[in-house]
Amino acid sequence: MHLNLERRESVILSVHPHNDRGTGIACAELAVLAGAERVEGCLFGNGERTGNVDIATLALNLHAQGVDPMIDFSDIDEIRRVVEEANQIEIHARHPYVGDLVHTAFSGTHQDAIAKGFADHRRRSAHAGHAESEMPWDVPYLPVDPADLGRTYDEVIRVNSQSGKGGIAYLLAAEFGVELPRRLQIDFARVVQRHTDTEGREVDAETLWTLFCAEYMPADGAADSTSARADAIEPLSRHRSAITAPERGRFLTVLEWRRGDDRGWSAGIGASEDEADRAASAAARRH
Amino acid sequence: MHLNLERRESVILSVHPHNDRGTGIACAELAVLAGAERVEGCLFGNGERTGNVDIATLALNLHAQGVDPMIDFSDIDEIRRVVEEANQIEIHARHPYVGDLVHTAFSGTHQDAIAKGFADHRRRSAHAGHAESEMPWDVPYLPVDPADLGRTYDEVIRVNSQSGKGGIAYLLAAEFGVELPRRLQIDFARVVQRHTDTEGREVDAETLWTLFCAEYMPADGAADSTSARADAIEPLSRHRSAITAPERGRFLTVLEWRRGDDRGWSAGIGASEDEADRAASAAARRH
Repeated sequence: MHLNLERRESVILSVHPHNDRGTGIACAELAVLAGAERVEGCLFGNGERTGNVDIATLALNLHAQGVDPMIDFSDIDEIRRVVEEANQIEIHARHPYVGDLVHTAFSGTHQDAIAKGFADHRRRSAHAGHAESEMPWDVPYLPVDPADLGRTYDEVIRVNSQSGKGGIAYLLAAEFGVELPRRLQIDFARVVQRHTDTEGREVDAETLWTLFCAEYMPADGAADSTSARADAIEPLSRHRSAITAPERGRFLTVLEWRRGDDRGWSAGIGASEDEADRAASAAARRH
Repeated sequence: MHLNLERRESVILSVHPHNDRGTGIACAELAVLAGAERVEGCLFGNGERTGNVDIATLALNLHAQGVDPMIDFSDIDEIRRVVEEANQIEIHARHPYVGDLVHTAFSGTHQDAIAKGFADHRRRSAHAGHAESEMPWDVPYLPVDPADLGRTYDEVIRVNSQSGKGGIAYLLAAEFGVELPRRLQIDFARVVQRHTDTEGREVDAETLWTLFCAEYMPADGAADSTSARADAIEPLSRHRSAITAPERGRFLTVLEWRRGDDRGWSAGIGASEDEADRAASAAARRH
């Protein structure tokens, strides 16, 4: 059409897609590639029936490809609040770029890839001597940097029954400064999985910490007096973290131990690394 | 890829689109056109982040093109209830094919085209001697017949401040059996517009009927004794309808009148056409 209009320069070739077949965005983008110069749409796809094409997604698709759409989405949640207030229709949790869940990974493999992508992004930024926000964005599963939209990274990795050790370890490290060795991550992931399978709900970092403490720091009452428990504990490995929350300034020791044929993990908290080590040993004896 | 795989017959070429750029559906459809033979998705597009591609929309896009997807969507709202219950995430009002608003036209021009499309569909069905459900579907703005999904036509035309005379007339005709002549439709649309502009809300057929009665059947108290009101009424035209609700079995007369330089419409209801005519004339005198 673009090539066959007689006085092409005298018309504005415009497309007006609705989303009835779920293809409004692709329709607009392919039309522009075919020569259209205007797209008629609505913010976040409001409009008759399934809505007019979402101009926010169109703009942010450009942004994700390195083209400046010249629209300010640096606080997308504020735009969303105004639109929801004006339209009296909520935006869906999975709406591209703006929904509550769209930067969130629950799946273990996704979390793992995203955590590695974040680390790589930081490494490349440091290597190039640029701010992280200035570096080209190339993190798996996230088409844009959530920070470009005024979002934080808090929402990116969340844990439910589909998550694995990666997400759990990430949350404990990010929220509490607690680094878990890989074999303990595997052990603790089973504990969390039992919990999420039973509860069927997402777990936040607080809950993870509560589960961790209950599992690896058994209270005195948990001790029993069977003869096996009296065997000597043999420490196999020990890992220490400086806790940043909820008990900032204290230390955590995680202790891998063997007692006869039995092996396991225990943990302890203290005002110094030594004190944390002793608490971890005491916890191991109570196991 | 499809053409360049060495042992093409030994692999299942499968795509797994998510909707991060709002293009999951188009991605799957173009992939299948390019030779893919499997699409991995979720019902109504649930799944990590923006969700996996919506297999219901993919299937119903095929249905809309005359290809049987061999999935039973004859009661799509029941499927939706199960999915919402299982996922604990509501489906958006504008989600293709299944959202609450996706078969609904508020816009006057859309309503007009849909009402004409409905009439044409009935006419072609009658002409061909087929049931309406057996005739190819070709109604503007509605990619599929809502009845194919277990939906009724009640939701198709609804009235708010963006609607015109067509939707108003359609609702009064469909719900109350009341046929309004075109010039009265224009007059009444102004009354409805004043109401929707003030209230900012959708109006249902009941409200339209209440507005209609208040406007064209003024109560006795509305009469005044200025000399102009005493002039003789000259009837210009008269239209009668058999009311189907809320007063089934009664008749409505709408009367176009002139009194000096003044022109207007009045209406009356009666147990017979004559009685309705008299009531309309009395209402005109009270104007």
